[in-house]
Amino acid sequence: MNETVSAVRVAVVQFDPQVGIQHSQANLEHSLELAREAAINGANLIVLPELANTGYLFGTRQEAFLHAELIPEGPSMQAWLDFARKHQVYLAAGLAERDGVQLFDSAVLVGPGGFIGKYRKAHLWNREKLWFTPGNLGFPVFDTPIGRIGLLICWDIWFPEVPRLLSLQGADIICSLNNWIWTPPPLFDDSGKCMASYLTMTAAHANNVFIAAANRIGEEQGERYLGCSLITGTNGWPIGKVASADEQTILYADIDLTSARSAPIWNSLNDLHRDRRVDVYESMLGYTDHPLLPR
Amino acid sequence: MNETVSAVRVAVVQFDPQVGIQHSQANLEHSLELAREAAINGANLIVLPELANTGYLFGTRQEAFLHAELIPEGPSMQAWLDFARKHQVYLAAGLAERDGVQLFDSAVLVGPGGFIGKYRKAHLWNREKLWFTPGNLGFPVFDTPIGRIGLLICWDIWFPEVPRLLSLQGADIICSLNNWIWTPPPLFDDSGKCMASYLTMTAAHANNVFIAAANRIGEEQGERYLGCSLITGTNGWPIGKVASADEQTILYADIDLTSARSAPIWNSLNDLHRDRRVDVYESMLGYTDHPLLPR
Repeated sequence: MNETVSAVRVAVVQFDPQVGIQHSQANLEHSLELAREAAINGANLIVLPELANTGYLFGTRQEAFLHAELIPEGPSMQAWLDFARKHQVYLAAGLAERDGVQLFDSAVLVGPGGFIGKYRKAHLWNREKLWFTPGNLGFPVFDTPIGRIGLLICWDIWFPEVPRLLSLQGADIICSLNNWIWTPPPLFDDSGKCMASYLTMTAAHANNVFIAAANRIGEEQGERYLGCSLITGTNGWPIGKVASADEQTILYADIDLTSARSAPIWNSLNDLHRDRRVDVYESMLGYTDHPLLPR
Repeated sequence: MNETVSAVRVAVVQFDPQVGIQHSQANLEHSLELAREAAINGANLIVLPELANTGYLFGTRQEAFLHAELIPEGPSMQAWLDFARKHQVYLAAGLAERDGVQLFDSAVLVGPGGFIGKYRKAHLWNREKLWFTPGNLGFPVFDTPIGRIGLLICWDIWFPEVPRLLSLQGADIICSLNNWIWTPPPLFDDSGKCMASYLTMTAAHANNVFIAAANRIGEEQGERYLGCSLITGTNGWPIGKVASADEQTILYADIDLTSARSAPIWNSLNDLHRDRRVDVYESMLGYTDHPLLPR
Protein backbone atom coordinates (compact mmCIF):
# COMPACT_ATOMS: atom_id res chain seq x y z
CA MET A 1 0.00 0.00 0.00
CA ASN A 2 1.21 3.45 -0.90
CA GLU A 3 0.72 5.55 2.23
CA THR A 4 0.55 8.78 0.30
CA VAL A 5 -2.87 7.86 -1.11
CA SER A 6 -6.07 7.34 0.84
CA ALA A 7 -7.29 4.01 -0.53
CA VAL A 8 -7.74 1.71 2.44
CA ARG A 9 -9.10 -1.77 2.97
CA VAL A 10 -10.90 -1.71 6.30
CA ALA A 11 -11.65 -4.91 8.18
CA VAL A 12 -13.89 -5.37 11.21
CA VAL A 13 -13.44 -8.54 13.20
CA GLN A 14 -16.46 -10.10 14.90
CA PHE A 15 -15.64 -12.90 17.31
CA ASP A 16 -16.29 -14.31 20.74
CA PRO A 17 -13.81 -13.53 23.51
CA GLN A 18 -14.52 -15.18 26.86
CA VAL A 19 -14.31 -13.51 30.22
CA GLY A 20 -12.09 -15.12 32.86
CA ILE A 21 -8.41 -14.63 33.43
CA GLN A 22 -7.78 -18.23 32.32
CA HIS A 23 -9.08 -17.24 28.85
CA SER A 24 -7.04 -14.06 28.41
CA GLN A 25 -4.20 -15.61 26.48
CA ALA A 26 -6.58 -17.50 24.21
CA ASN A 27 -8.62 -14.35 23.61
CA LEU A 28 -5.50 -12.43 22.66
CA GLU A 29 -4.28 -15.20 20.37
CA HIS A 30 -7.69 -15.46 18.79
CA SER A 31 -7.76 -11.72 18.12
CA LEU A 32 -4.30 -11.91 16.54
CA GLU A 33 -5.18 -14.92 14.43
CA LEU A 34 -8.22 -13.17 12.98
CA ALA A 35 -6.34 -9.90 12.54
CA ARG A 36 -3.64 -11.88 10.70
CA GLU A 37 -6.28 -13.32 8.35
CA ALA A 38 -7.49 -9.77 7.69
CA ALA A 39 -3.94 -8.53 7.06
CA ILE A 40 -3.26 -11.41 4.68
CA ASN A 41 -6.43 -10.43 2.86
CA GLY A 42 -5.02 -6.97 2.37
CA ALA A 43 -6.59 -5.02 5.22
CA ASN A 44 -4.76 -1.82 6.18
CA LEU A 45 -7.01 -0.86 9.07
CA ILE A 46 -8.34 -3.60 11.33
CA VAL A 47 -10.94 -3.06 14.04
CA LEU A 48 -11.43 -5.45 16.96
CA PRO A 49 -14.34 -5.24 19.44
CA GLU A 50 -14.44 -3.57 22.84
CA LEU A 51 -12.59 -5.55 25.54
CA ALA A 52 -11.32 -7.89 22.85
CA ASN A 53 -8.72 -9.53 25.05
CA THR A 54 -10.71 -9.92 28.25
CA GLY A 55 -14.34 -10.67 27.48
CA TYR A 56 -16.98 -8.44 28.92
CA LEU A 57 -18.96 -9.58 31.92
CA PHE A 58 -16.72 -9.08 34.90
CA GLY A 59 -18.41 -10.09 38.15
CA THR A 60 -16.54 -7.79 40.50
CA ARG A 61 -14.20 -4.83 40.41
CA GLN A 62 -11.43 -7.13 41.58
CA GLU A 63 -11.99 -9.33 38.55
CA ALA A 64 -11.92 -6.32 36.23
CA PHE A 65 -8.70 -5.21 37.91
CA LEU A 66 -7.10 -8.58 37.26
CA HIS A 67 -7.92 -8.33 33.57
CA ALA A 68 -6.63 -4.79 33.17
CA GLU A 69 -3.24 -3.76 31.87
CA LEU A 70 -1.12 -0.67 31.37
CA ILE A 71 -1.09 1.20 28.08
CA PRO A 72 1.23 0.74 26.27
CA GLU A 73 3.28 -1.52 28.57
CA GLY A 74 0.75 -4.36 28.97
CA PRO A 75 1.08 -7.77 27.33
CA SER A 76 -1.87 -7.45 24.93
CA MET A 77 -0.70 -4.00 23.97
CA GLN A 78 2.77 -5.35 23.21
CA ALA A 79 1.35 -8.18 21.12
CA TRP A 80 -0.86 -5.81 19.13
CA LEU A 81 2.05 -3.37 18.66
CA ASP A 82 4.25 -6.19 17.38
CA PHE A 83 1.47 -7.32 15.08
CA ALA A 84 0.91 -3.87 13.59
CA ARG A 85 4.63 -3.40 13.04
CA LYS A 86 5.11 -6.82 11.50
CA HIS A 87 2.12 -6.60 9.17
CA GLN A 88 2.41 -2.85 8.55
CA VAL A 89 -1.23 -2.24 9.44
CA TYR A 90 -3.29 0.01 11.66
CA LEU A 91 -5.16 -1.79 14.41
CA ALA A 92 -7.87 -0.52 16.78
CA ALA A 93 -8.53 -2.78 19.74
CA GLY A 94 -10.44 -2.61 23.00
CA LEU A 95 -9.01 -3.53 26.37
CA ALA A 96 -9.35 -2.92 30.09
CA GLU A 97 -6.84 -0.25 31.04
CA ARG A 98 -5.29 0.17 34.47
CA ASP A 99 -3.93 3.56 35.50
CA GLY A 100 -2.97 3.59 39.16
CA VAL A 101 -6.07 2.46 40.99
CA GLN A 102 -8.39 3.52 38.20
CA LEU A 103 -9.73 1.28 35.48
CA PHE A 104 -10.90 2.46 32.07
CA ASP A 105 -12.77 0.76 29.26
CA SER A 106 -10.29 1.84 26.60
CA ALA A 107 -9.51 1.57 22.93
CA VAL A 108 -6.06 1.87 21.44
CA LEU A 109 -4.89 2.70 17.97
CA VAL A 110 -1.55 1.25 16.93
CA GLY A 111 0.20 1.36 13.58
CA PRO A 112 3.27 0.33 11.63
CA GLY A 113 5.23 2.99 13.52
CA GLY A 114 4.05 1.96 16.98
CA PHE A 115 1.59 3.37 19.49
CA ILE A 116 -0.63 6.17 18.12
CA GLY A 117 -3.12 6.92 20.86
CA LYS A 118 -5.90 5.80 23.12
CA TYR A 119 -9.49 6.67 23.97
CA ARG A 120 -11.29 6.00 27.25
CA LYS A 121 -15.02 5.21 27.00
CA ALA A 122 -16.96 8.28 28.09
CA HIS A 123 -20.42 6.72 28.43
CA LEU A 124 -20.40 3.64 30.62
CA TRP A 125 -23.10 0.99 30.28
CA ASN A 126 -24.75 -0.70 33.23
CA ARG A 127 -22.35 -2.45 35.64
CA GLU A 128 -19.32 -1.04 33.85
CA LYS A 129 -20.02 1.91 36.13
CA LEU A 130 -19.14 -0.31 39.08
CA TRP A 131 -15.55 -0.89 37.96
CA PHE A 132 -14.59 1.61 35.28
CA THR A 133 -13.99 5.34 35.60
CA PRO A 134 -15.78 7.46 32.99
CA GLY A 135 -13.40 8.44 30.20
CA ASN A 136 -11.46 11.64 30.73
CA LEU A 137 -9.67 12.09 27.41
CA GLY A 138 -12.45 13.76 25.42
CA PHE A 139 -13.05 12.34 21.96
CA PRO A 140 -9.64 12.40 20.29
CA VAL A 141 -9.03 12.12 16.56
CA PHE A 142 -5.66 10.78 15.48
CA ASP A 143 -3.88 11.97 12.38
CA THR A 144 -2.24 9.06 10.59
CA PRO A 145 -0.65 8.61 7.18
CA ILE A 146 -3.83 6.91 5.92
CA GLY A 147 -6.25 9.52 7.30
CA ARG A 148 -7.79 10.88 10.47
CA ILE A 149 -9.15 8.17 12.77
CA GLY A 150 -11.55 8.59 15.66
CA LEU A 151 -12.52 5.96 18.20
CA LEU A 152 -15.72 5.34 20.11
CA ILE A 153 -16.88 2.50 22.29
CA CYS A 154 -20.33 0.89 22.28
CA TRP A 155 -22.86 2.94 24.35
CA ASP A 156 -21.07 6.08 23.17
CA ILE A 157 -22.95 5.96 19.87
CA TRP A 158 -26.27 6.31 21.69
CA PHE A 159 -25.09 9.89 22.27
CA PRO A 160 -25.14 11.79 18.96
CA GLU A 161 -22.67 14.24 20.47
CA VAL A 162 -19.89 11.65 20.11
CA PRO A 163 -19.85 11.05 16.34
CA ARG A 164 -20.61 14.76 15.92
CA LEU A 165 -17.59 15.87 17.95
CA LEU A 166 -15.36 13.33 16.19
CA SER A 167 -16.59 14.47 12.81
CA LEU A 168 -16.21 18.15 13.69
CA GLN A 169 -12.57 17.47 14.39
CA GLY A 170 -12.21 16.11 10.91
CA ALA A 171 -12.38 12.34 11.46
CA ASP A 172 -12.41 10.50 8.13
CA ILE A 173 -13.39 7.24 9.79
CA ILE A 174 -14.69 6.30 13.20
CA CYS A 175 -13.67 2.93 14.55
CA SER A 176 -16.57 1.78 16.71
CA LEU A 177 -15.58 -0.97 19.18
CA ASN A 178 -18.55 -2.71 20.72
CA ASN A 179 -20.02 -5.30 22.98
CA TRP A 180 -23.60 -4.62 21.86
CA ILE A 181 -25.67 -6.69 24.17
CA TRP A 182 -29.05 -8.36 23.85
CA THR A 183 -31.42 -5.69 25.21
CA PRO A 184 -35.20 -5.74 25.60
CA PRO A 185 -37.03 -6.47 22.33
CA PRO A 186 -37.57 -5.54 19.60
CA LEU A 187 -34.00 -6.40 18.75
CA PHE A 188 -33.88 -6.96 15.02
CA ASP A 189 -36.15 -5.94 12.21
CA ASP A 190 -36.90 -8.04 9.14
CA SER A 191 -33.65 -6.94 7.54
CA GLY A 192 -31.61 -8.44 10.40
CA LYS A 193 -30.42 -5.07 11.66
CA CYS A 194 -30.61 -3.94 15.26
CA MET A 195 -31.04 -0.40 16.56
CA ALA A 196 -27.26 -0.17 17.00
CA SER A 197 -26.92 -0.80 13.25
CA TYR A 198 -29.21 2.15 12.59
CA LEU A 199 -27.48 4.39 15.13
CA THR A 200 -24.25 3.61 13.28
CA MET A 201 -25.76 4.23 9.85
CA THR A 202 -27.40 7.52 10.75
CA ALA A 203 -24.33 8.78 12.61
CA ALA A 204 -22.27 8.13 9.47
CA HIS A 205 -24.87 9.73 7.22
CA ALA A 206 -25.47 12.84 9.31
CA ASN A 207 -21.74 13.42 9.74
CA ASN A 208 -20.49 12.32 6.33
CA VAL A 209 -17.99 9.97 7.94
CA PHE A 210 -17.10 6.31 7.50
CA ILE A 211 -17.84 4.10 10.51
CA ALA A 212 -16.32 0.66 10.97
CA ALA A 213 -18.20 -1.05 13.78
CA ALA A 214 -16.93 -4.32 15.26
CA ASN A 215 -19.14 -6.12 17.71
CA ARG A 216 -18.72 -9.45 19.43
CA ILE A 217 -20.92 -12.53 19.40
CA GLY A 218 -21.56 -15.41 21.76
CA GLU A 219 -22.81 -15.62 25.30
CA GLU A 220 -21.40 -14.95 28.75
CA GLN A 221 -23.21 -15.69 32.01
CA GLY A 222 -26.55 -15.78 30.23
CA GLU A 223 -26.01 -12.51 28.37
CA ARG A 224 -25.98 -12.68 24.58
CA TYR A 225 -24.37 -10.38 22.05
CA LEU A 226 -25.97 -8.97 18.94
CA GLY A 227 -23.37 -9.31 16.22
CA CYS A 228 -24.54 -6.72 13.66
CA SER A 229 -21.00 -5.58 12.86
CA LEU A 230 -20.95 -3.36 9.80
CA ILE A 231 -18.97 -0.83 7.81
CA THR A 232 -20.89 2.16 6.54
CA GLY A 233 -20.13 4.53 3.74
CA THR A 234 -20.21 8.26 4.31
CA ASN A 235 -23.78 8.09 2.98
CA GLY A 236 -24.68 5.91 5.96
CA TRP A 237 -25.60 2.78 4.05
CA PRO A 238 -23.73 -0.42 4.87
CA ILE A 239 -20.94 -1.35 2.48
CA GLY A 240 -21.65 -5.04 2.01
CA LYS A 241 -23.53 -6.98 4.62
CA VAL A 242 -24.42 -6.48 8.24
CA ALA A 243 -23.12 -9.49 10.18
CA SER A 244 -25.57 -11.80 11.93
CA ALA A 245 -25.46 -12.58 15.64
CA ASP A 246 -24.23 -16.13 15.19
CA GLU A 247 -21.17 -15.94 12.99
CA GLN A 248 -17.51 -15.33 13.62
CA THR A 249 -16.62 -13.21 10.64
CA ILE A 250 -14.47 -10.52 9.15
CA LEU A 251 -16.12 -7.81 7.07
CA TYR A 252 -14.12 -5.83 4.53
CA ALA A 253 -14.63 -2.57 2.71
CA ASP A 254 -12.39 -0.85 0.19
CA ILE A 255 -12.79 2.84 0.69
CA ASP A 256 -11.09 6.13 -0.01
CA LEU A 257 -10.78 7.48 3.52
CA THR A 258 -10.25 11.07 2.51
CA SER A 259 -13.45 11.07 0.48
CA ALA A 260 -15.06 11.92 3.83
CA ARG A 261 -13.48 15.34 3.41
CA SER A 262 -15.64 16.22 0.42
CA ALA A 263 -19.14 17.45 1.04
CA PRO A 264 -21.81 14.97 0.01
CA ILE A 265 -23.14 15.76 -3.43
CA TRP A 266 -26.62 16.89 -2.45
CA ASN A 267 -26.83 20.11 -4.37
CA SER A 268 -24.79 23.29 -4.68
CA LEU A 269 -26.33 24.96 -1.63
CA ASN A 270 -26.09 22.44 1.21
CA ASP A 271 -23.34 20.92 3.28
CA LEU A 272 -23.84 18.88 6.42
CA HIS A 273 -21.20 20.73 8.40
CA ARG A 274 -21.53 24.21 7.00
CA ASP A 275 -25.30 24.14 7.48
CA ARG A 276 -25.05 23.63 11.24
CA ARG A 277 -26.80 26.47 13.09
CA VAL A 278 -24.18 26.84 15.78
CA ASP A 279 -25.62 30.26 16.57
CA VAL A 280 -28.91 28.64 17.58
CA TYR A 281 -27.40 25.63 19.33
CA GLU A 282 -25.13 27.79 21.46
CA SER A 283 -27.87 30.20 22.41
CA MET A 284 -29.87 27.21 23.62
CA LEU A 285 -27.19 25.49 25.66
CA GLY A 286 -28.82 26.94 28.74
CA TYR A 287 -31.62 24.47 28.19
CA THR A 288 -29.36 21.74 29.46
CA ASP A 289 -30.05 23.38 32.83
CA HIS A 290 -33.79 23.30 32.29
CA PRO A 291 -35.47 22.42 35.61
CA LEU A 292 -37.22 19.51 33.92
CA LEU A 293 -33.94 17.86 33.23
CA PRO A 294 -31.85 15.49 35.25
CA ARG A 295 -28.20 16.48 35.04
CA MET B 1 -60.94 12.78 25.40
CA ASN B 2 -60.16 13.57 28.99
CA GLU B 3 -57.42 16.17 28.82
CA THR B 4 -56.07 15.39 32.24
CA VAL B 5 -54.60 12.08 31.06
CA SER B 6 -51.89 11.59 28.50
CA ALA B 7 -53.47 8.99 26.20
CA VAL B 8 -53.38 10.43 22.71
CA ARG B 9 -54.21 9.21 19.24
CA VAL B 10 -51.67 10.72 16.91
CA ALA B 11 -52.29 10.96 13.18
CA VAL B 12 -49.84 11.87 10.44
CA VAL B 13 -51.28 12.89 7.11
CA GLN B 14 -49.39 12.05 3.92
CA PHE B 15 -50.73 13.72 0.80
CA ASP B 16 -49.83 15.64 -2.31
CA PRO B 17 -50.19 19.43 -2.26
CA GLN B 18 -49.42 21.19 -5.53
CA VAL B 19 -47.37 24.33 -5.90
CA GLY B 20 -48.94 27.27 -7.73
CA ILE B 21 -51.15 29.99 -6.33
CA GLN B 22 -54.08 28.61 -8.32
CA HIS B 23 -53.82 25.40 -6.21
CA SER B 24 -53.62 27.05 -2.79
CA GLN B 25 -57.31 26.84 -1.97
CA ALA B 26 -57.50 23.21 -3.11
CA ASN B 27 -54.39 22.33 -1.07
CA LEU B 28 -55.91 23.88 2.03
CA GLU B 29 -59.24 22.14 1.51
CA HIS B 30 -57.46 18.85 0.90
CA SER B 31 -55.48 19.24 4.14
CA LEU B 32 -58.69 19.99 6.04
CA GLU B 33 -60.57 17.09 4.48
CA LEU B 34 -57.84 14.62 5.51
CA ALA B 35 -57.51 16.19 8.94
CA ARG B 36 -61.28 15.86 9.33
CA GLU B 37 -61.04 12.16 8.49
CA ALA B 38 -58.35 11.81 11.16
CA ALA B 39 -60.42 13.70 13.71
CA ILE B 40 -63.48 11.55 12.98
CA ASN B 41 -61.25 8.53 13.53
CA GLY B 42 -60.44 9.83 16.96
CA ALA B 43 -57.13 11.59 16.45
CA ASN B 44 -56.25 14.19 19.09
CA LEU B 45 -53.01 15.37 17.52
CA ILE B 46 -52.81 15.65 13.73
CA VAL B 47 -49.62 16.37 11.81
CA LEU B 48 -49.59 17.75 8.26
CA PRO B 49 -46.46 18.01 6.10
CA GLU B 50 -44.18 21.00 5.58
CA LEU B 51 -45.70 23.69 3.32
CA ALA B 52 -48.96 21.76 3.34
CA ASN B 53 -51.00 24.59 1.87
CA THR B 54 -48.62 25.79 -0.82
CA GLY B 55 -46.70 22.90 -2.28
CA TYR B 56 -42.96 23.02 -2.26
CA LEU B 57 -41.10 23.91 -5.43
CA PHE B 58 -41.35 27.64 -5.80
CA GLY B 59 -39.54 28.91 -8.86
CA THR B 60 -38.71 32.41 -7.67
CA ARG B 61 -38.72 34.43 -4.47
CA GLN B 62 -41.64 36.38 -5.86
CA GLU B 63 -43.62 33.17 -6.19
CA ALA B 64 -42.76 32.16 -2.63
CA PHE B 65 -43.84 35.61 -1.48
CA LEU B 66 -47.21 35.23 -3.20
CA HIS B 67 -47.80 31.93 -1.36
CA ALA B 68 -46.83 33.26 2.06
CA GLU B 69 -49.19 34.49 4.75
CA LEU B 70 -49.09 36.11 8.15
CA ILE B 71 -49.21 34.04 11.34
CA PRO B 72 -51.84 33.89 12.74
CA GLU B 73 -53.82 36.29 10.55
CA GLY B 74 -53.47 34.44 7.24
CA PRO B 75 -56.28 32.52 5.57
CA SER B 76 -54.82 29.00 5.99
CA MET B 77 -54.03 29.81 9.59
CA GLN B 78 -57.60 30.90 10.20
CA ALA B 79 -58.97 27.74 8.57
CA TRP B 80 -56.71 25.53 10.65
CA LEU B 81 -57.59 27.46 13.83
CA ASP B 82 -61.29 27.06 13.10
CA PHE B 83 -60.75 23.38 12.42
CA ALA B 84 -58.89 22.74 15.68
CA ARG B 85 -61.53 24.61 17.66
CA LYS B 86 -64.41 22.86 15.98
CA HIS B 87 -62.95 19.37 16.30
CA GLN B 88 -61.22 19.98 19.62
CA VAL B 89 -57.88 18.69 18.32
CA TYR B 90 -54.27 19.76 18.17
CA LEU B 91 -52.95 20.34 14.67
CA ALA B 92 -49.40 20.91 13.45
CA ALA B 93 -49.15 22.26 9.93
CA GLY B 94 -46.48 23.71 7.68
CA LEU B 95 -46.84 26.93 5.73
CA ALA B 96 -44.87 29.75 4.14
CA GLU B 97 -44.80 32.62 6.62
CA ARG B 98 -44.44 36.27 5.70
CA ASP B 99 -43.10 38.72 8.28
CA GLY B 100 -42.47 42.12 6.74
CA VAL B 101 -40.20 41.44 3.80
CA GLN B 102 -38.89 38.20 5.25
CA LEU B 103 -40.21 34.75 4.45
CA PHE B 104 -39.90 31.72 6.71
CA ASP B 105 -40.55 28.03 6.19
CA SER B 106 -42.70 27.70 9.30
CA ALA B 107 -44.77 25.23 11.28
CA VAL B 108 -47.64 26.17 13.53
CA LEU B 109 -49.26 24.36 16.41
CA VAL B 110 -52.92 25.16 17.02
CA GLY B 111 -55.33 23.61 19.47
CA PRO B 112 -58.87 23.66 20.79
CA GLY B 113 -58.07 26.91 22.57
CA GLY B 114 -56.54 28.64 19.56
CA PHE B 115 -53.02 29.49 18.45
CA ILE B 116 -50.28 27.84 20.55
CA GLY B 117 -47.05 28.68 18.81
CA LYS B 118 -44.85 28.54 15.76
CA TYR B 119 -41.43 27.34 14.70
CA ARG B 120 -39.30 28.63 11.84
CA LYS B 121 -37.15 26.08 10.02
CA ALA B 122 -33.56 26.54 11.13
CA HIS B 123 -31.82 24.41 8.50
CA LEU B 124 -32.82 25.34 4.98
CA TRP B 125 -32.54 22.86 2.13
CA ASN B 126 -31.23 23.74 -1.30
CA ARG B 127 -33.14 26.56 -3.06
CA GLU B 128 -35.16 27.31 0.06
CA LYS B 129 -32.11 29.41 0.90
CA LEU B 130 -32.96 31.63 -2.04
CA TRP B 131 -36.33 32.72 -0.63
CA PHE B 132 -36.57 31.85 3.06
CA THR B 133 -34.70 33.36 5.99
CA PRO B 134 -33.10 30.82 8.38
CA GLY B 135 -35.29 30.29 11.44
CA ASN B 136 -34.64 32.65 14.34
CA LEU B 137 -36.89 31.23 17.07
CA GLY B 138 -34.62 28.50 18.40
CA PHE B 139 -36.27 25.11 18.89
CA PRO B 140 -39.32 25.81 21.02
CA VAL B 141 -41.28 23.19 22.97
CA PHE B 142 -44.90 24.00 23.69
CA ASP B 143 -46.64 22.93 26.88
CA THR B 144 -50.17 21.78 26.13
CA PRO B 145 -52.81 19.95 28.13
CA ILE B 146 -51.95 16.70 26.32
CA GLY B 147 -48.19 17.01 26.75
CA ARG B 148 -45.11 18.89 25.59
CA ILE B 149 -44.87 19.21 21.84
CA GLY B 150 -41.82 20.15 19.79
CA LEU B 151 -41.72 20.90 16.07
CA LEU B 152 -39.06 20.37 13.45
CA ILE B 153 -39.06 20.66 9.70
CA CYS B 154 -37.50 18.23 7.21
CA TRP B 155 -33.72 18.87 6.82
CA ASP B 156 -33.62 19.79 10.53
CA ILE B 157 -33.52 16.12 11.47
CA TRP B 158 -30.25 15.67 9.59
CA PHE B 159 -28.81 17.70 12.50
CA PRO B 160 -28.86 15.58 15.67
CA GLU B 161 -28.70 18.80 17.67
CA VAL B 162 -32.34 19.50 16.85
CA PRO B 163 -34.09 16.46 18.37
CA ARG B 164 -31.54 16.62 21.18
CA LEU B 165 -32.37 20.22 22.07
CA LEU B 166 -36.11 19.53 21.83
CA SER B 167 -35.77 16.48 24.04
CA LEU B 168 -33.58 18.28 26.55
CA GLN B 169 -36.38 20.79 26.98
CA GLY B 170 -38.70 17.95 27.85
CA ALA B 171 -40.56 17.35 24.58
CA ASP B 172 -42.82 14.30 24.86
CA ILE B 173 -43.39 14.20 21.13
CA ILE B 174 -41.75 15.84 18.16
CA CYS B 175 -43.96 16.65 15.19
CA SER B 176 -41.74 16.34 12.15
CA LEU B 177 -43.15 18.14 9.10
CA ASN B 178 -41.46 17.18 5.88
CA ASN B 179 -41.07 17.43 2.17
CA TRP B 180 -38.47 14.64 2.00
CA ILE B 181 -37.31 14.70 -1.56
CA TRP B 182 -35.95 12.09 -3.89
CA THR B 183 -32.17 12.39 -3.40
CA PRO B 184 -29.31 10.48 -5.00
CA PRO B 185 -29.60 6.70 -4.54
CA PRO B 186 -29.65 4.50 -2.59
CA LEU B 187 -33.07 5.74 -1.51
CA PHE B 188 -34.84 2.79 0.04
CA ASP B 189 -33.60 -0.47 1.48
CA ASP B 190 -35.37 -3.80 1.16
CA SER B 191 -37.68 -2.87 4.03
CA GLY B 192 -39.00 0.16 2.11
CA LYS B 193 -37.46 2.65 4.50
CA CYS B 194 -35.37 5.61 3.43
CA MET B 195 -32.53 7.26 5.35
CA ALA B 196 -34.99 9.85 6.66
CA SER B 197 -36.95 6.98 8.25
CA TYR B 198 -33.81 5.89 10.04
CA LEU B 199 -32.85 9.41 11.09
CA THR B 200 -36.32 9.67 12.61
CA MET B 201 -36.10 6.29 14.33
CA THR B 202 -32.66 6.84 15.82
CA ALA B 203 -33.50 10.39 16.94
CA ALA B 204 -36.51 8.99 18.80
CA HIS B 205 -34.50 6.14 20.27
CA ALA B 206 -31.50 8.16 21.38
CA ASN B 207 -33.72 10.82 22.95
CA ASN B 208 -36.52 8.63 24.31
CA VAL B 209 -39.12 10.76 22.56
CA PHE B 210 -42.05 10.03 20.26
CA ILE B 211 -41.70 11.36 16.72
CA ALA B 212 -44.66 11.77 14.37
CA ALA B 213 -43.26 12.41 10.90
CA ALA B 214 -45.55 13.49 8.06
CA ASN B 215 -44.10 13.66 4.59
CA ARG B 216 -45.72 14.40 1.28
CA ILE B 217 -45.91 12.35 -1.89
CA GLY B 218 -46.28 13.10 -5.57
CA GLU B 219 -44.19 15.03 -8.03
CA GLU B 220 -43.58 18.69 -8.82
CA GLN B 221 -41.53 19.98 -11.74
CA GLY B 222 -39.77 16.63 -12.08
CA GLU B 223 -38.95 16.32 -8.37
CA ARG B 224 -40.44 13.36 -6.52
CA TYR B 225 -41.18 12.93 -2.84
CA LEU B 226 -40.34 9.92 -0.70
CA GLY B 227 -43.41 9.25 1.39
CA CYS B 228 -41.96 7.22 4.28
CA SER B 229 -44.18 8.96 6.86
CA LEU B 230 -44.04 7.17 10.20
CA ILE B 231 -44.74 7.43 13.91
CA THR B 232 -42.05 6.04 16.20
CA GLY B 233 -42.24 4.89 19.78
CA THR B 234 -39.80 6.22 22.32
CA ASN B 235 -37.78 3.07 21.60
CA GLY B 236 -37.33 4.33 18.05
CA TRP B 237 -39.16 1.52 16.27
CA PRO B 238 -42.09 2.45 14.04
CA ILE B 239 -45.54 2.01 15.56
CA GLY B 240 -47.32 0.32 12.69
CA LYS B 241 -46.14 0.73 9.16
CA VAL B 242 -43.88 3.15 7.34
CA ALA B 243 -45.87 4.66 4.46
CA SER B 244 -44.80 4.02 0.89
CA ALA B 245 -43.99 6.77 -1.62
CA ASP B 246 -47.11 6.24 -3.68
CA GLU B 247 -50.04 6.39 -1.31
CA GLN B 248 -52.10 9.16 0.15
CA THR B 249 -52.62 7.90 3.67
CA ILE B 250 -53.16 8.68 7.32
CA LEU B 251 -51.13 6.78 9.91
CA TYR B 252 -52.37 6.47 13.47
CA ALA B 253 -50.76 5.57 16.78
CA ASP B 254 -52.31 5.35 20.22
CA ILE B 255 -49.70 6.41 22.69
CA ASP B 256 -49.28 7.70 26.21
CA LEU B 257 -47.45 10.94 25.52
CA THR B 258 -46.09 11.36 29.01
CA SER B 259 -44.51 7.91 28.92
CA ALA B 260 -41.63 9.77 27.26
CA ARG B 261 -40.93 11.21 30.71
CA SER B 262 -39.92 7.86 32.16
CA ALA B 263 -36.42 6.61 31.52
CA PRO B 264 -36.28 3.63 29.17
CA ILE B 265 -36.08 0.39 31.11
CA TRP B 266 -32.54 -0.58 30.21
CA ASN B 267 -31.19 -1.41 33.62
CA SER B 268 -30.91 0.32 36.97
CA LEU B 269 -27.73 2.21 36.11
CA ASN B 270 -28.36 3.93 32.78
CA ASP B 271 -30.51 6.73 31.53
CA LEU B 272 -30.22 8.37 28.13
CA HIS B 273 -30.34 11.90 29.46
CA ARG B 274 -28.58 11.49 32.77
CA ASP B 275 -25.69 9.67 31.10
CA ARG B 276 -24.82 12.59 28.86
CA ARG B 277 -21.23 13.72 29.45
CA VAL B 278 -21.97 17.41 29.28
CA ASP B 279 -18.62 18.04 30.99
CA VAL B 280 -16.81 16.52 28.03
CA TYR B 281 -19.05 17.99 25.34
CA GLU B 282 -18.70 21.50 26.70
CA SER B 283 -14.98 21.26 27.10
CA MET B 284 -14.79 20.27 23.43
CA LEU B 285 -17.03 22.95 22.02
CA GLY B 286 -13.87 24.79 20.99
CA TYR B 287 -13.45 22.13 18.37
CA THR B 288 -16.21 23.73 16.38
CA ASP B 289 -13.55 26.34 15.65
CA HIS B 290 -11.06 23.73 14.49
CA PRO B 291 -9.14 25.12 11.51
CA LEU B 292 -10.11 22.08 9.47
CA LEU B 293 -13.75 22.98 9.70
CA PRO B 294 -15.88 25.17 7.55
CA ARG B 295 -18.09 27.42 9.66
